[in-house]
Amino acid sequence: MSATTLAPALIARFAEITGETYALTETAAVAPYLVESRGLYRGTTPLVLRPGSVAEIAAILKLASEMGTAIVPQGGNTGHVAGQIPREGAADVVLSLSRLNRIRDVDPIGNVIVADAGCVLADIQKAAEAVDRLFPLSLGSEGSCQIGGNLSSNAGGTAVLAYGNARQLCLGLEVVLPTGEVWDGLRRLKKDNTGYDLRDLFIGAEGTLGVITGAVLKLVPRPVGHEVAFAGLRSVADALALYDLAFRRCGTALTGFELMPRIGIEFTTRHIPGVRDPLQTPHAWYALIDISTSDSAETASRMAEALMAEAMEQDLAEDAVIATSGAQRKALWHMRESMSPAQKPEGGSIKHDVSVPVSSIPAFMAEADAAVTAIIPGARICAFGHMGDGNIHYNISQPVGADKQAFLDRWHEVNAVVHGIVLKYGGSISAEHGIGQLKRDELAAIRAPIEIDLMRRIKHAFDPAGIMNPGKVLRSDT
Amino acid sequence: MSATTLAPALIARFAEITGETYALTETAAVAPYLVESRGLYRGTTPLVLRPGSVAEIAAILKLASEMGTAIVPQGGNTGHVAGQIPREGAADVVLSLSRLNRIRDVDPIGNVIVADAGCVLADIQKAAEAVDRLFPLSLGSEGSCQIGGNLSSNAGGTAVLAYGNARQLCLGLEVVLPTGEVWDGLRRLKKDNTGYDLRDLFIGAEGTLGVITGAVLKLVPRPVGHEVAFAGLRSVADALALYDLAFRRCGTALTGFELMPRIGIEFTTRHIPGVRDPLQTPHAWYALIDISTSDSAETASRMAEALMAEAMEQDLAEDAVIATSGAQRKALWHMRESMSPAQKPEGGSIKHDVSVPVSSIPAFMAEADAAVTAIIPGARICAFGHMGDGNIHYNISQPVGADKQAFLDRWHEVNAVVHGIVLKYGGSISAEHGIGQLKRDELAAIRAPIEIDLMRRIKHAFDPAGIMNPGKVLRSDT
Repeated sequence: MSATTLAPALIARFAEITGETYALTETAAVAPYLVESRGLYRGTTPLVLRPGSVAEIAAILKLASEMGTAIVPQGGNTGHVAGQIPREGAADVVLSLSRLNRIRDVDPIGNVIVADAGCVLADIQKAAEAVDRLFPLSLGSEGSCQIGGNLSSNAGGTAVLAYGNARQLCLGLEVVLPTGEVWDGLRRLKKDNTGYDLRDLFIGAEGTLGVITGAVLKLVPRPVGHEVAFAGLRSVADALALYDLAFRRCGTALTGFELMPRIGIEFTTRHIPGVRDPLQTPHAWYALIDISTSDSAETASRMAEALMAEAMEQDLAEDAVIATSGAQRKALWHMRESMSPAQKPEGGSIKHDVSVPVSSIPAFMAEADAAVTAIIPGARICAFGHMGDGNIHYNISQPVGADKQAFLDRWHEVNAVVHGIVLKYGGSISAEHGIGQLKRDELAAIRAPIEIDLMRRIKHAFDPAGIMNPGKVLRSDT
Repeated sequence: MSATTLAPALIARFAEITGETYALTETAAVAPYLVESRGLYRGTTPLVLRPGSVAEIAAILKLASEMGTAIVPQGGNTGHVAGQIPREGAADVVLSLSRLNRIRDVDPIGNVIVADAGCVLADIQKAAEAVDRLFPLSLGSEGSCQIGGNLSSNAGGTAVLAYGNARQLCLGLEVVLPTGEVWDGLRRLKKDNTGYDLRDLFIGAEGTLGVITGAVLKLVPRPVGHEVAFAGLRSVADALALYDLAFRRCGTALTGFELMPRIGIEFTTRHIPGVRDPLQTPHAWYALIDISTSDSAETASRMAEALMAEAMEQDLAEDAVIATSGAQRKALWHMRESMSPAQKPEGGSIKHDVSVPVSSIPAFMAEADAAVTAIIPGARICAFGHMGDGNIHYNISQPVGADKQAFLDRWHEVNAVVHGIVLKYGGSISAEHGIGQLKRDELAAIRAPIEIDLMRRIKHAFDPAGIMNPGKVLRSDT
């Protein structure tokens, strides 16, 4: 472990690169960079740097490399696994990308946008919209998360089913390496088979191999037809059958298939202003089905109607509605997006961001539910998520009247039980949030030693001095 | 460089692993493994091993690692850059994957298929079809190429536009590492953010980091609507405008957009039995437009008709037909697939597999045409390809009556001119065929030293003994 402070002379040398204004050392100024949204981790830092150019970042890393200073890249600070938070008690320097927020180029014919890493996701979406294109990456924190962080964590979100996650939406990268050298991989090519896939190595590496400073992103046509259906279902098995039907009937026009439990609908209607259950009677499960088409609005509408008719006919859905206006479509998505916030007023919530093979979702859910309620009688399981991606946010609200802290203290115990079942089904303990600090040791424990060893070899090959976001993803050697 | 022979005792030890029957040393028996389809490279080998299991491959690599024996994995031997051919004058052992050809599992609900690396691509397509699904990877050599080779070279083909290349169609891999250790990354997950992306590192590495032995592949619903349109165009610029229109109107239903020049239509109608020009009068350029839909045949047909009507209305197409039967659709695709074979009877052909940003295709083509005809007056440029992917097979047939060998002797000179223009537009010198031996030194020359250095560091980290397909992609150190 490095020292917990940095020599004032070294701080001054870093500050010289960015200018004093952008080198923060005051407690109040650095505070927002040290805590993540869930409050699970709190880090320490002697210095937050806010460089304004790729050249400044290169100079910072060159100096850090020479001096052995640990660097923690940070985007919008919306990550859930503390990958962006400096270690507690170390002297990690935070490198904020926020000032690197220029859209460099938009090419609607080539369907690409080139952006600085610090661009806020919503701003990229807007830039695409301005040329009548869609940048499909979409997630709850899109108003503040940054594309560099999205790429470093291979963000998922609500549009993965049709468009893929951040990895699939990126054609090229610019990365500053730990040595301060710049890799210009800003290619705008859909096909390029010229050597090892460095791009995909940096994507999802959570800033441990280098600092992403720019990216070429894929655009797609803006759909002209958009329909959202909402169905009440008997069981998760029926949800899977409905998903299968929807995927076969709609193909890539199926742009969302979200699963929600009854308890989630109750939580949202109870706690989120304006949310109401659009169906007359309660159902055990619900599916939100999103359909988008490029050719005409009629195609989407025909698809949605035919699909829901077939679902009713096959007795897969007990009841269903199709939104008839943009406002109704928004309201349905708002309900889905409120699943997690609506758990807050219900007390403590132990969360899991897991995935299993799509066809194993019903078996996984049944087994996990039984195991969790066996160890915590009265636990209220609010498992929802991106069914088509096999990605379930398996969240558990505390029993009514239980002590919140005592419940939350069982976080790791419950995680172990749920993740054990996830692994039995060949699943992932982090479907879209990454590893960071939160799941680092668990990853090392569950993976074959050869896999961790290969990751370590890559880490050493790219960052022999171990300065890039140490202690994230992999345990730090130093 | 290693010795050119292998000690008989070592050959015997390798043969013990596979059994004598599957250890080939006779000249006639090893001959088919030493030459690639274009005849540009001819290698030598003391031994071809045909293992029947992952365990045998692991044992072979363990022994090779101990003894420093170079191993060249080979699938269907259809590659165009000699990545699968042993070096000339070395003692590389060829490791044929052909006997590893079992479909391990098909899960239509989970939309995955798990296959041995030696499965022939067409057999995987058939296994998908048997459960009413589509495995979209499709290329000219699909009847003999193997999925392990497709993944190792990140194969492209004709369905990349909508479905992506081999990389996008793979969820998980099993890889035998140079040490003989097996990495089991056979995950069936659409979302899994748990550490560095090892999968995408092995994909496209051309067997230089390990031997892919199995893969989890993505399936999609089989489209129910399928239309193929064929349009005669004035210019490449009009082709780009038509592509833009088609992509905006059809989105992901646009499953192909292929560009062909007049001379290509002439070559195919002249040399390929049964091919005829479906349009009344000649046009400078042609587009083949493929549309597939999942919901109904009517959607595809409506889309194709509306698109071609709009194209005529906007004067982007001079003339157009839409195939009215499966036979007509096949005939149009057959014409496109005959572009390359039809060049053979016209004499020598200097080929390029390049890509540029889609919006730069017209400018690239104009500049390349001028440069090529300036150095070879009378050169007949037959540039065709996957316009929507920015991927042009920029092929040049010899001038009429010229000496074939004298023309082919200028291969590298012409490559240098064309690739220079490709690079000016930020393009790739190998869009879908890879690097192998053919483009290895050129890659090192055109890329920034830091990029080659990062690739070398990965190579050393994974294969410190340098036994995996040495001299491919990167120059061998030994």
